[in-house]
Amino acid sequence: MSGSTYGTLFSITTWGESHGPAVGVVIDGCPAGLPLTEDDIQKYLDRRKPGQNKFTTKRAESDKASILSGVFEGKTTGTPISIMVHNTDHRSRDYGKIKNCYRPGHADYTFDAKYGFRDYRGGGRSSGRETIGRAAAGAVAAKLLFELGIRVTAYTKAIGSICIDSSEYHYDEIMENALYMPNNYYAEKASEYLDSCMKNLDSSGGIIECVVTGLPAGIGEPVFKKLDACLSKAVMSIGAVKGVEIGDGFQAAEAFGSINNDSFGVNGGKIFKESNHSGGILGGISDGSPVILRAAIKPTPSIGQEQNTVTSALENTAITITGRHDPVIVPRAVVVVEAMTALTILDLLMVNMSSKVSSLKNFYKN
Amino acid sequence: MSGSTYGTLFSITTWGESHGPAVGVVIDGCPAGLPLTEDDIQKYLDRRKPGQNKFTTKRAESDKASILSGVFEGKTTGTPISIMVHNTDHRSRDYGKIKNCYRPGHADYTFDAKYGFRDYRGGGRSSGRETIGRAAAGAVAAKLLFELGIRVTAYTKAIGSICIDSSEYHYDEIMENALYMPNNYYAEKASEYLDSCMKNLDSSGGIIECVVTGLPAGIGEPVFKKLDACLSKAVMSIGAVKGVEIGDGFQAAEAFGSINNDSFGVNGGKIFKESNHSGGILGGISDGSPVILRAAIKPTPSIGQEQNTVTSALENTAITITGRHDPVIVPRAVVVVEAMTALTILDLLMVNMSSKVSSLKNFYKN
Amino acid sequence: MSGSTYGTLFSITTWGESHGPAVGVVIDGCPAGLPLTEDDIQKYLDRRKPGQNKFTTKRAESDKASILSGVFEGKTTGTPISIMVHNTDHRSRDYGKIKNCYRPGHADYTFDAKYGFRDYRGGGRSSGRETIGRAAAGAVAAKLLFELGIRVTAYTKAIGSICIDSSEYHYDEIMENALYMPNNYYAEKASEYLDSCMKNLDSSGGIIECVVTGLPAGIGEPVFKKLDACLSKAVMSIGAVKGVEIGDGFQAAEAFGSINNDSFGVNGGKIFKESNHSGGILGGISDGSPVILRAAIKPTPSIGQEQNTVTSALENTAITITGRHDPVIVPRAVVVVEAMTALTILDLLMVNMSSKVSSLKNFYKN
Amino acid sequence: MSGSTYGTLFSITTWGESHGPAVGVVIDGCPAGLPLTEDDIQKYLDRRKPGQNKFTTKRAESDKASILSGVFEGKTTGTPISIMVHNTDHRSRDYGKIKNCYRPGHADYTFDAKYGFRDYRGGGRSSGRETIGRAAAGAVAAKLLFELGIRVTAYTKAIGSICIDSSEYHYDEIMENALYMPNNYYAEKASEYLDSCMKNLDSSGGIIECVVTGLPAGIGEPVFKKLDACLSKAVMSIGAVKGVEIGDGFQAAEAFGSINNDSFGVNGGKIFKESNHSGGILGGISDGSPVILRAAIKPTPSIGQEQNTVTSALENTAITITGRHDPVIVPRAVVVVEAMTALTILDLLMVNMSSKVSSLKNFYKN
Repeated sequence: MSGSTYGTLFSITTWGESHGPAVGVVIDGCPAGLPLTEDDIQKYLDRRKPGQNKFTTKRAESDKASILSGVFEGKTTGTPISIMVHNTDHRSRDYGKIKNCYRPGHADYTFDAKYGFRDYRGGGRSSGRETIGRAAAGAVAAKLLFELGIRVTAYTKAIGSICIDSSEYHYDEIMENALYMPNNYYAEKASEYLDSCMKNLDSSGGIIECVVTGLPAGIGEPVFKKLDACLSKAVMSIGAVKGVEIGDGFQAAEAFGSINNDSFGVNGGKIFKESNHSGGILGGISDGSPVILRAAIKPTPSIGQEQNTVTSALENTAITITGRHDPVIVPRAVVVVEAMTALTILDLLMVNMSSKVSSLKNFYKN
Repeated sequence: MSGSTYGTLFSITTWGESHGPAVGVVIDGCPAGLPLTEDDIQKYLDRRKPGQNKFTTKRAESDKASILSGVFEGKTTGTPISIMVHNTDHRSRDYGKIKNCYRPGHADYTFDAKYGFRDYRGGGRSSGRETIGRAAAGAVAAKLLFELGIRVTAYTKAIGSICIDSSEYHYDEIMENALYMPNNYYAEKASEYLDSCMKNLDSSGGIIECVVTGLPAGIGEPVFKKLDACLSKAVMSIGAVKGVEIGDGFQAAEAFGSINNDSFGVNGGKIFKESNHSGGILGGISDGSPVILRAAIKPTPSIGQEQNTVTSALENTAITITGRHDPVIVPRAVVVVEAMTALTILDLLMVNMSSKVSSLKNFYKN
Repeated sequence: MSGSTYGTLFSITTWGESHGPAVGVVIDGCPAGLPLTEDDIQKYLDRRKPGQNKFTTKRAESDKASILSGVFEGKTTGTPISIMVHNTDHRSRDYGKIKNCYRPGHADYTFDAKYGFRDYRGGGRSSGRETIGRAAAGAVAAKLLFELGIRVTAYTKAIGSICIDSSEYHYDEIMENALYMPNNYYAEKASEYLDSCMKNLDSSGGIIECVVTGLPAGIGEPVFKKLDACLSKAVMSIGAVKGVEIGDGFQAAEAFGSINNDSFGVNGGKIFKESNHSGGILGGISDGSPVILRAAIKPTPSIGQEQNTVTSALENTAITITGRHDPVIVPRAVVVVEAMTALTILDLLMVNMSSKVSSLKNFYKN
Repeated sequence: MSGSTYGTLFSITTWGESHGPAVGVVIDGCPAGLPLTEDDIQKYLDRRKPGQNKFTTKRAESDKASILSGVFEGKTTGTPISIMVHNTDHRSRDYGKIKNCYRPGHADYTFDAKYGFRDYRGGGRSSGRETIGRAAAGAVAAKLLFELGIRVTAYTKAIGSICIDSSEYHYDEIMENALYMPNNYYAEKASEYLDSCMKNLDSSGGIIECVVTGLPAGIGEPVFKKLDACLSKAVMSIGAVKGVEIGDGFQAAEAFGSINNDSFGVNGGKIFKESNHSGGILGGISDGSPVILRAAIKPTPSIGQEQNTVTSALENTAITITGRHDPVIVPRAVVVVEAMTALTILDLLMVNMSSKVSSLKNFYKN
C-alpha cells in the first residue's frame, strides 16, 4: 500500500533507496508564501550527514538538496515541493554475502517475506538514507513553525548507559559536540563508551529527547489523532526506534496520581501548570506547556562480530558484517526525530484551524 | 477534523460522550462472511465494564451491545456494522464545581482551549466510556483474526511498583484475577498496593503488555505505516497511555548490538529467531515471531486529595474530586489495548494482500 | 474497504440497510459552536421522505431523526455527531423471488459478486434508505454554510423529456410542487408524463441541478481534490446518478473557446465574470461565481413489466417487480444532491483555511 | 492541503510546474514483481507529447522519463517508484502581460485568490504539463492491469460538433490518426473543423470515451468509493474536463426504465447482460460488462482573439494570447483519461481483495 506518505493537510511522500540514483521527498500542502531556499534544507541534511566524526560512516556523500518545484521567486507557492538528493556514492560493490542471507537485526528477511525479493544493496529502502527526505521536509515544517513562534529541538539524552538527567541539561552545548548531547561532559563520556564498543566490534543504542516550545493549547484531534498518538507514530516510524514516551512516560506507570497530576495556576491572567509530568499533552491535546517526548533507539544492527543467520535458501550460516558502520545511529537520528516532530506538529496546527465555527466565520466573513 | 475514525481498509468511527444517551462505533470495511453475534461483542465489553471489583467504579452500567446493521442471517455482509450501547446511568447530577474549573490531569482545560467550551458531564468525550466503541470493534477484529490463527492477548504487567518479570508469567491465570495479571500472587500484592493507594486518597498507574501470536512475517507498510508505528499510534491514542515500546523497548537503548540482534536459524525448513529482542518486528514489518508491546498507563487523575487548580474564569482555586473513581484504570484498559492491537493488525493484514503482483494474479486470474 | 466514510476534515460515515433496525450517520469533524437541533435535521429528511405524493412509495416511514452525541446545550461540541433513524416499516415479507434472482438495473448481482451473498431485503445497503444519513449530515453542513453566507440549492431540471430551460426558472416555485421543479407549469407537464409512465408499468429518469451561491473564490485543492473533481465524486456516489457536469458541461465540448471563455471585468472594485460557462470553477478552484452542477438520474429500475433475468443458481428466468415503487426517484434525490454538495463545499472550505502562511500567522499569533 | 496525492493503496503524488526544472510523480504502493522499464513509461508520455502534428504546440520537449527508485533488476520492488521528466524548454520569456492579468478560461485568477500569488510562467501548476506525472503513473497501472487481462482504451469520440456514433467505431484506426479517433474518416472531418477554428483564431472542445474490458464483477466500494464515483473524480480532476458520464449517462435521464434496464442472461454457465446501458456498473460495483465512460473537454482557453479581462491590480484591460497553442487539447488528453482510469481501476482491484473473509483465509492460511 501507500506507506510512504505521511500527513493529512501537510503531507510528505518520501522515495528512494540507498543505492539508486537518488532519494527525495515531495511535500504536498505546504502553505503558500513561506520564504524557502535550498540552504534552509541543506542545514538539516548536514546534521544527519555521515562522515562528520569517527562514529559516523565515512561514505563520501555530499547530500546536496535540489528544489525542483513548488518555490517561485523565493517563496513557496502552495503546490508540491519536490526535493531531490543524488546518491553520489553508489558504485557497484560485491554484495554477494548480504545478497543471499539475512542480516540479524536488519529488515532483509522481512522485506523478502513481504515483497518476494528485495533491493539488497546497502539496505535498499530500509537504509538510513530513507530519512533524507524526512529531514528535508522537516526543515520546511520547522521553518514555518519558527514563523509561528514554535521551536522544535531534539538532542541525545543517552548513549547506551550514559544518560543525562534533565537537571544537567545545557541546551547551548547541543551543537557543540558531535553526539548532539546537551552536556559536553557527558558527551565526552559517551564518546569513550562508543570507543569501547568499537573496540569490541559492537554497537550501542541510546535515547533521543525532543522538546516543542511555543505550541499553543488546543492542538491534537481526539480520539485517534491525538497529539501524543500522532507523535508516537511519527517517531516510531523511524528505523531503529523501539519505544516512545511522552512527559514522564514509563515512569508515570510507577507514580501516584497525587504526584503525576500537574496543578494549574493563574499568573498575570495566563493559565500555567506548576509541573509538567504530562509532557504538555492532556487528553491528546496540547496544554500550552512544552511538549516533551523521548525515543529509544536500538543499537546499530551491523556489527563486526560473527553472527548466526540463514541464507535465503533457508540454510544455516554465519555472517560477519564488514565495511565501516556507525557504532551508534543516535546522533544522526536526532535531526530525524526533530523533523518528524515538526511535521506532525505543523499538520495538526493546520488541521486545528477549523475546530470552531467562530474560526470559519472570522476567516470567511471578513 | 475527523479524528474519531481509525484504520485504512478496516476502519472504525467511534462516537458518544459519557453522559449522552448512548455511545457506539461504526465498523466499516469488515470483510463479508464472518459469523457475528451480539454475544461476541458483549464478551469484550464485559471485560472493561465497571463495578467488577472494588477497584472499579460502581456505576451500574449494563453496557449491552446492539448490532444495528451490517450483519444478516448471522454473518457480516461487508457493509458498515453499527454497534450501540445505551448510557443507562446518566442521571443529571450537580456538576457545579467541575463545570467551572479544570481538574488537574484531565482534559477539561484542553477541550475548552480547542473547542471554546465542553460537555463537562463526566468527562464528556474524554471519558473512559469512549473506549466502549473501541472494545466492541476490537471484538470483531479479534474474531476474524482468530479464524486466521492469530491471537491477541493483553494483560497487566505492572501496577505501580508491582511488576511481573516475564519469567514469572502464567498466562492461564490472567482471567483468574480482577487485575488481569498473569500471576495470581502478584495480583494479590498489587491488590494490597491499591488498597493503600485508596486509603491515601491516591491512585496508581501501571503497565499493560500485549502479545500477538500466529502473525505471519511480512505485515506492515514501510516507511510511515510500519507495524510498530501503527501499533504505537493505536495504543497511544488510548486515554492515559504515556508510553509505548516494542520488544525490548527502552531497554534496547542500553543494550549492545551483539545482544540486541536476534540470530536467525532454520529448523524443519522453517526460519526462526533464536531470541526476540525485536518484539517480532524488523524494519517495521512482522518477522514471524510474537509481536510484543507494552503501554505505560498513568495514574487515574481523579483523586480524593485536594489539588490546586483554576476556574474557567481564570481564578485560582482548589478542588477535591468526590464520588467513586477507580484508583487504577489499568485492568479496565487491558481489553482496550487488546482491541486497538487487533484492529491495527487486521487492517495491516488486509492492506498487505496486494503487496505482490503474484498475489493479484492469483486472486483475479483463477 | 471503508467505503462508507466521506470527507477529509468534515467527514461522515453512513450505516444501515433498508430492513435492519435503523439507519444513521456519524458526522466527525463538525466545528464546535454550531446551534443544532433535531428539527434542523428533520427538515432535510422530510424532503426525501416517501409517501409525499402519488409518485413516491407509500411505505409509512416516520423517519424521525435522533441526535445521540456531539451536541451539548444546543450547540455542537466538536466531537462526533451520531444521528439515527429507526426503520419503522421493516416487517418481514416474502422476498422469495427477489432473494434468489438478480433484478435488472439493481445491485443484486454485483453485491453477490463482491461479497459472496447479500442482504436481499429491500435492496439492503443499496436501498435508497442509505441516503437518509447523507441528508441528515447535509442538513448540518448546510446550516453551517448558511452562517457563512453560502447557499446550496438543488431542484429538478428535467423529468424524462420534460426539461426546463434556465431562462424559465422561477426559484420560488421549487417548494411549491411535489417534483421540486423551478416552474410549476413544467411540473404539471412532468406529472402528466409520470402518470403515463405508471400506466405503462414503466419508469422515468431526470436531471437535478444544484447551485451554490456566496462561495468565495479560492476553494478547491489542485490537482486531484479540485472542487469539480470532489463534487463529481460526491454526486456520482448517489445511487442512480449516471452523469455529472459542471457549468456548460457536455455542451462545452461543442462550443468554441471564444464563446466558452468567461471574460473578467471589474465593478466597484470587485472582480466579476461577464458570463458563467465555467460553472463557477476554473482550474478546479472556485472563481466567485455561482457553482452550477447537474446530475443525470437513471429511471427507477423497479418496474412492473416482466423482465428477463437469471437466478443466483445461474438459471434463466423472468421477473415482475410487484409492490409500489416510485416511477421516478428524481424528486426524492434532490435533497440528497443538495446534501452531498453542501458536505463537499464545507469540507473544502475547512481544508482551504491553511492555504497561506499568512492565514496561519493570523490564526496563531493574534 | 495535500491535493496532489491520489489513490488509497496504489497512490500517486504528482509534482512540478510548467517552467520549473522538472515535473514528476511518485507512485506508492505498486505491488512488487512487475517488470518495468523506462520504455514502458515513455510510450505513454509520447502519446501526450506536444509537436506531434499541426494541432499540438511546437514546444520542443523531449519529455524523457527517468525512473529514480522502486525498480531493481528490472522489476518493481514494492517501494515508491519516482519518475522524473526534465523541462527542457523552459527558457525565460517575457511574461509581462500574462504576469499581471488574468487570462479568461484559465486558472490565473483562482490561483491568486487561493494562494495570494502564483507562478505565472506558462500556467505554472495548472499547465497541461502537470499531466505528465499522471500519464507516467498510468503506464505502470496499465501494465499491471494488462497482466490481469484488463485493458483500458481511451479515444476521441468527438471534436466540436464532429461526433462518431458507436456504430461507426473502428478501434484499429485509433492509433492511425493524429486525433486518436476510432474512425479515420471522421478524423479527417475533425481535422478540417480544427483548421477552420485556427483560421478564426478560435479553439474547440470535444469528448473522450474510455472503455475497460476484462474487469471482473465486484469492483467498487459502496457507498462513497463506488467505481463510478471514483472514476468521475479521477477524470474530472483533469484540467478542462467539464462533464463525466457512465454508460448511457445523460441519455439515461430521458430513457424509460424498460429500456434502460439491462436484462441478465446465462450462457455457458456464465452470466451476461443483454445490453450495457449501465456502462458496466450497477450499484457502484462493476458488473462484468465493459466499463464505459465519457469526458467532456472544454475548448482550449488560449485563443488569439482579443478578450476582455482585468489586471491583478483590478483594472479593466484586454488581452490577446500570442504564441502557438493547441486549438484543441482533446487528442493529448486521451492518454491522460486512460491513465486516470487505469489508476482508479487498479487501486479498487487491490482494495477489493479483502472484501470476503474467505479471501483472507485463502491468502493467509495456505
